[in-house]
Amino acid sequence: MSAEIICVGTELLLGDILNSNLQFLGQQLAILGIPHYYQTVVGDNLDRVKQAIDIALKRSSILIFTGGLGPTPDDLTTEAIAAYFNIPLISKPEIIEDMKAKFAKRGRELASNNYKQALIPQGATILPNPTGTAPGMIWQPQANVTILTFPGVPSEMYRMWSETAIPYLKSQGWGEEMIYSKMLRFWGIGESNLALKVNHLFSLNNPMVAPYVSKGEVRLRVSSKAKSEFEAFKIINPVVDEIKNIAGEDYYGCDDDSLASVIGKLLKEKKQTLSVAESCTGGGLGSMITSVSGSSDYFMGGVISYDNRVKMSVLGVSETSLNQFGAVSHQVAEEMAKGVQKLLNTDWSISITGIAGPEGGTMEKPVGLVYIGIASADRQVTSIKYLLGDEKGRDLIRHFSACYGLDQLRRKLVNN
Amino acid sequence: MSAEIICVGTELLLGDILNSNLQFLGQQLAILGIPHYYQTVVGDNLDRVKQAIDIALKRSSILIFTGGLGPTPDDLTTEAIAAYFNIPLISKPEIIEDMKAKFAKRGRELASNNYKQALIPQGATILPNPTGTAPGMIWQPQANVTILTFPGVPSEMYRMWSETAIPYLKSQGWGEEMIYSKMLRFWGIGESNLALKVNHLFSLNNPMVAPYVSKGEVRLRVSSKAKSEFEAFKIINPVVDEIKNIAGEDYYGCDDDSLASVIGKLLKEKKQTLSVAESCTGGGLGSMITSVSGSSDYFMGGVISYDNRVKMSVLGVSETSLNQFGAVSHQVAEEMAKGVQKLLNTDWSISITGIAGPEGGTMEKPVGLVYIGIASADRQVTSIKYLLGDEKGRDLIRHFSACYGLDQLRRKLVNN
Repeated sequence: MSAEIICVGTELLLGDILNSNLQFLGQQLAILGIPHYYQTVVGDNLDRVKQAIDIALKRSSILIFTGGLGPTPDDLTTEAIAAYFNIPLISKPEIIEDMKAKFAKRGRELASNNYKQALIPQGATILPNPTGTAPGMIWQPQANVTILTFPGVPSEMYRMWSETAIPYLKSQGWGEEMIYSKMLRFWGIGESNLALKVNHLFSLNNPMVAPYVSKGEVRLRVSSKAKSEFEAFKIINPVVDEIKNIAGEDYYGCDDDSLASVIGKLLKEKKQTLSVAESCTGGGLGSMITSVSGSSDYFMGGVISYDNRVKMSVLGVSETSLNQFGAVSHQVAEEMAKGVQKLLNTDWSISITGIAGPEGGTMEKPVGLVYIGIASADRQVTSIKYLLGDEKGRDLIRHFSACYGLDQLRRKLVNN
Repeated sequence: MSAEIICVGTELLLGDILNSNLQFLGQQLAILGIPHYYQTVVGDNLDRVKQAIDIALKRSSILIFTGGLGPTPDDLTTEAIAAYFNIPLISKPEIIEDMKAKFAKRGRELASNNYKQALIPQGATILPNPTGTAPGMIWQPQANVTILTFPGVPSEMYRMWSETAIPYLKSQGWGEEMIYSKMLRFWGIGESNLALKVNHLFSLNNPMVAPYVSKGEVRLRVSSKAKSEFEAFKIINPVVDEIKNIAGEDYYGCDDDSLASVIGKLLKEKKQTLSVAESCTGGGLGSMITSVSGSSDYFMGGVISYDNRVKMSVLGVSETSLNQFGAVSHQVAEEMAKGVQKLLNTDWSISITGIAGPEGGTMEKPVGLVYIGIASADRQVTSIKYLLGDEKGRDLIRHFSACYGLDQLRRKLVNN
């Protein structure tokens, strides 16, 4: 018994849309412990969808469809499935009522083509769509064959999956053993260095430890297959503790944590405030900090001192430092941090000055050179130099700079 | 003759990775005019990859593989292809030399498992990988069958595709007619309103006009299949002009333009400068402006006045306005804009104050309420109120706010 995902939509073949449904459903099937060996994408073509069904049924018993449930003639997933099994489509009055109510809310009336969306094969069950108009279906057209259909809109599909499909699949005996996991997050250590330190854990079978990297952040997923969350975490937690011990301060949080949420938590605990002075990030650091809801408790604001005149006039950076050391230097980073700390009267401040490129680099000060300054609650100011390399490109250099700024503050808060 | 994409990788089935290669290759095949009806994802399993090849060859003559070219035992794409056609793998010394040179650059030596990456089926041609170690191949194992393999790493694949695969496919007669297109970008008009205005164009066959929406930005793609770029744009341009005429100021740019790059161009032309005062966006507006390389020519900086005390002490917003109208009001937006324009001595300034949520909304001032202020070069200050709705969520409300700020400035610059 394995599952197969079939995404229907010519727009997917043309690359008009990034198919994120495959990733979501892949993760979900893995969590539920449902084997899954193939994914197929096929266009809005009746014969080709039927052929895809034929191929899938030779190797899989749960067929999960996304897309092709809309009102236009192109939308033919339900029709193709019914035709394949040679079962008539019947109109479900409850779907029509539901659509009418949803349309009425927006002051609209059902169009004639919407009636098509009320058709499902005889014997199939409606899979309700709480946020959109097109419902899906759950159908067992023959023994050992289960069909689930979802619209292609990710947000509608996610909700239908969690609210209806998961309970249904569990009722069929799936998910008795599920995969539970903890995602550990690191900053300031590369993947290979971390991998060397925890190398002995990669050969474990239960829990499994797997590394991930994206945008400079290394993550380790520790996962276990178990009958309950409690049982799983009995197996996961000792390894999590071991990894945290090994990684020390390079470990910063887990699961939904971000560098910004972690420094937020620390500042709230200490009842301390923060400001920023940004040059090359141009506001990206402040934006990251304020992406956390409730950040107004500790974040006062900051100064985007993109131009040197602003560094001088608003932050009080000295003209001498700018001339002698340049805007991208230890001295200016520290004066920026001190300046904004004073101006906004905060306990802590972070400053960033660097060369994001692609222009503006020199032999002595190449693209990717960044200084991070931290002014601390005890009025100490320090700065760190980073050489991020020009091959990353402007966006990533700016992103990394903001992350390193948060990470430096985090390390100081932890030790303060 | 049609193409089929086969992505190999258990990590794709598990949802560990978002499969963006499918979108890229789908777009590329469409541009080259190569029909493409199926995409398949299969895990790292020899038999299943061979089965996927067998199925694909019954319906397609160009098979494009991504993934499974690495050094580990899991990487078995080349092996599976050779086994399917029953052709021996041979070791290519030029691949080994290339890998040795690349490793040497990083001070590393070839590991024993890297030698596997030098194996390709007898008769196949190496598809060079300029940025990574694993090369791909181009192979015609039998008449009317072409196999192309690429690593799964998107950046490596993109470059190999453009530098080697496209010239090869063109040499085989593909791409004589290609799809050329212009992407028109709009802000400040919804998809349905724009669609109503240009409805008569959607039925055109050459050029074709198709709408897209993402994150509040509506786009229209005008595309034509032609033997040359020149011929295509002879067909595309009149329709582009018609759309621009119809859309008026709601059209802001095309192709690689962004709101930030467009206001940058306008400010440079006028030799004028800009500053920002941000509350709910927390730096996101400045970050957007400075995402444009060269923005230091016109962007001086700004103040992130997240806390009301900063609005008063740094920007000079009056306590009376804050008490009487609240931080999220026309008055405060305008005082913020005036304050930062004066403090940073710029021609223009944009201010944003709003409620990004999810907390902090009231009946009178709901989540999604945002005021944008613009102080202009002629010392006029105006502000606009937006009700973005709470259902968008914090991230999108902040993103929309920054975009509306840029859009308001753009409209003023165009008319100034």
